[in-house]
Amino acid sequence: MKFYSKKDVKSLKRYGAKELLNFCTQVLVKLGVEEEKAHLLADTLVQANLRGVDSHGVTRMGIYVERIRRGLVDPHAEPEIIKDTPAVALMDAKSSIGQVASYRAMQLAIKKAKEIGTGLVGVRGSNHFGAAAYYTMCALKEDLIGIALSNAPATMAPWGARSPYIGTNPISVAIPSNRRLPIVFDMATSIVARGKIILAAQKGESIPEGWAIDTEGRITTDAKKALEGAVLPFGGAKGSAIAILIDIFAGILTGAAFGPHIGDLYRNLKERQNLGHVFAAIDPRAFGDIEEFKNRVDQMIDEIKGLPPAYGVEEVLLPGEIEFRTEEVRKREGIPLEPEVEEMLKALGKEFDVPWIEPLFG
Amino acid sequence: MKFYSKKDVKSLKRYGAKELLNFCTQVLVKLGVEEEKAHLLADTLVQANLRGVDSHGVTRMGIYVERIRRGLVDPHAEPEIIKDTPAVALMDAKSSIGQVASYRAMQLAIKKAKEIGTGLVGVRGSNHFGAAAYYTMCALKEDLIGIALSNAPATMAPWGARSPYIGTNPISVAIPSNRRLPIVFDMATSIVARGKIILAAQKGESIPEGWAIDTEGRITTDAKKALEGAVLPFGGAKGSAIAILIDIFAGILTGAAFGPHIGDLYRNLKERQNLGHVFAAIDPRAFGDIEEFKNRVDQMIDEIKGLPPAYGVEEVLLPGEIEFRTEEVRKREGIPLEPEVEEMLKALGKEFDVPWIEPLFG
Repeated sequence: MKFYSKKDVKSLKRYGAKELLNFCTQVLVKLGVEEEKAHLLADTLVQANLRGVDSHGVTRMGIYVERIRRGLVDPHAEPEIIKDTPAVALMDAKSSIGQVASYRAMQLAIKKAKEIGTGLVGVRGSNHFGAAAYYTMCALKEDLIGIALSNAPATMAPWGARSPYIGTNPISVAIPSNRRLPIVFDMATSIVARGKIILAAQKGESIPEGWAIDTEGRITTDAKKALEGAVLPFGGAKGSAIAILIDIFAGILTGAAFGPHIGDLYRNLKERQNLGHVFAAIDPRAFGDIEEFKNRVDQMIDEIKGLPPAYGVEEVLLPGEIEFRTEEVRKREGIPLEPEVEEMLKALGKEFDVPWIEPLFG
Repeated sequence: MKFYSKKDVKSLKRYGAKELLNFCTQVLVKLGVEEEKAHLLADTLVQANLRGVDSHGVTRMGIYVERIRRGLVDPHAEPEIIKDTPAVALMDAKSSIGQVASYRAMQLAIKKAKEIGTGLVGVRGSNHFGAAAYYTMCALKEDLIGIALSNAPATMAPWGARSPYIGTNPISVAIPSNRRLPIVFDMATSIVARGKIILAAQKGESIPEGWAIDTEGRITTDAKKALEGAVLPFGGAKGSAIAILIDIFAGILTGAAFGPHIGDLYRNLKERQNLGHVFAAIDPRAFGDIEEFKNRVDQMIDEIKGLPPAYGVEEVLLPGEIEFRTEEVRKREGIPLEPEVEEMLKALGKEFDVPWIEPLFG
């Protein structure tokens, strides 16, 4: 995967979300995935692209197809609930498509939250689930708070260590609002996407101090040495602890793999990943009036956006605000695809006899 | 409050935990607090000192006594459960002692978790609750995972803003283990304790870039300008978002005050704080065998501690490890008290006719 600067992006061809969704769905159906599952998986990818999270968009089609083809992801497996209380459940994803297990687990958490105030659903035996915000935003439709966590293959050194042990374990939280856009927080626990270090190495540029360590565990500004070493967690020791805790919830509590025992998405094409996730929903109605809750969220957003911006900052932004703006633009102007992603998708189309689509622009 | 460097601490008098606990309890009883509540409040303070978290130890006795005396904290108020499902509850603390409401809320979360797998209890109308780890560690006694969040008076600027809006909103998570020490994570969401900036200003030293901004919203290394400006959240935009989310849970969801509407502990001696907290407990038994869970936690700890340390680091440490070591030392060698804290306690003893205690050492 190559990484493009913002300037490069303007020259890219842009495709319609609907067309991309149909294309990806058809490829997956031809591969043997049931229509409903294919559509869901494709939708998570295209939604990520629409929101500007291209790292979790259709660029993943190649590896997903490859893992299904190798039998590492079983599209026909049906996730099973193996433990259940009115508030908590544990799902064995049985190495089904990560998005299918995750979507169902989130729906179960939502159902429980509506019945009893909160729902907590762990998933083991799963695969890469895409962008976490897809699931937490499902809770918004019901005016619930949504939470999603996942572990990930080891690429980060815990604080004080020199070699990778924890993944860039993501966490997303979505908060319903009224007049205002909802708050949709979705972050990796690394200080920076590994892709930015790859880009710097390609360009021969140095990286800021604090992003990564070399193989000796020394802070390095040399992008190449950083790639041989380990990415650092965000927020120093505190962020490192948060990444570890996410793995304890998503990996250890659920009975999935954890730490370096998780199969790598790209580099391990022989074993199942056995990822773990946790999904939770909380119903503000269990605490009081839902309109009052949403109005108070609006009030906080109004107040934070009304604060004087810091030096050099144009506007104070809430979590998710940039993604909502990108979505608005891309719904209108299409999703820009890097040539490599385009080529990969075209090749899939050729292989599975699905006609490639025309760009909206470019 | 003055701040001491580690070197200074060696010259301090050290007191026995039991003696300090008895002294503080007696002062509170003489003030009119019921024995059980007085003992609980004093215990949270002395436990914090034992664990080396002196900022949340007996140094707080002065302000707690002052707020009770002014009627801002009502020691006789009984926290009331105003909403209740088998999994979720909301407590109105009625401005009772923050520690009393918090301890009861955590016990209720534990009870629910044991019955149904998880318990989530929000608290509104509360006061400063001390160190969050006190409550999450209650869950450890039952082999449950404990979680505690609180909001706090506004001292931090949200990412991109120049003036304070959010508090240093703490979060604690405690994870039970088997052979190994449990993982006890307890952090403020600020990049650094404000006290460290006060210390630098006192000494005329500069502070590292990234700790704080001045009143114009510029990153400053001038400790005095930092104190006039705002402390920054840990972990940049990500940490800022986490601090905001904690306030949404602890403040907005519970119906407590939030953001700058929270009464300041020290600077506002006319109004109640109306703080909010959230306590949660999760029973690993709802997901599988408890021994297996704890053994997997041990395995992760073994593996992380077995990683090669980063350059200049002697030992890879897990969250809470330093505090357990400090506790071991201080149980044996006593709790060092700064002269100002000693004087404040002596004065309270004199006022309430409680004899001051002898140091173990020094």
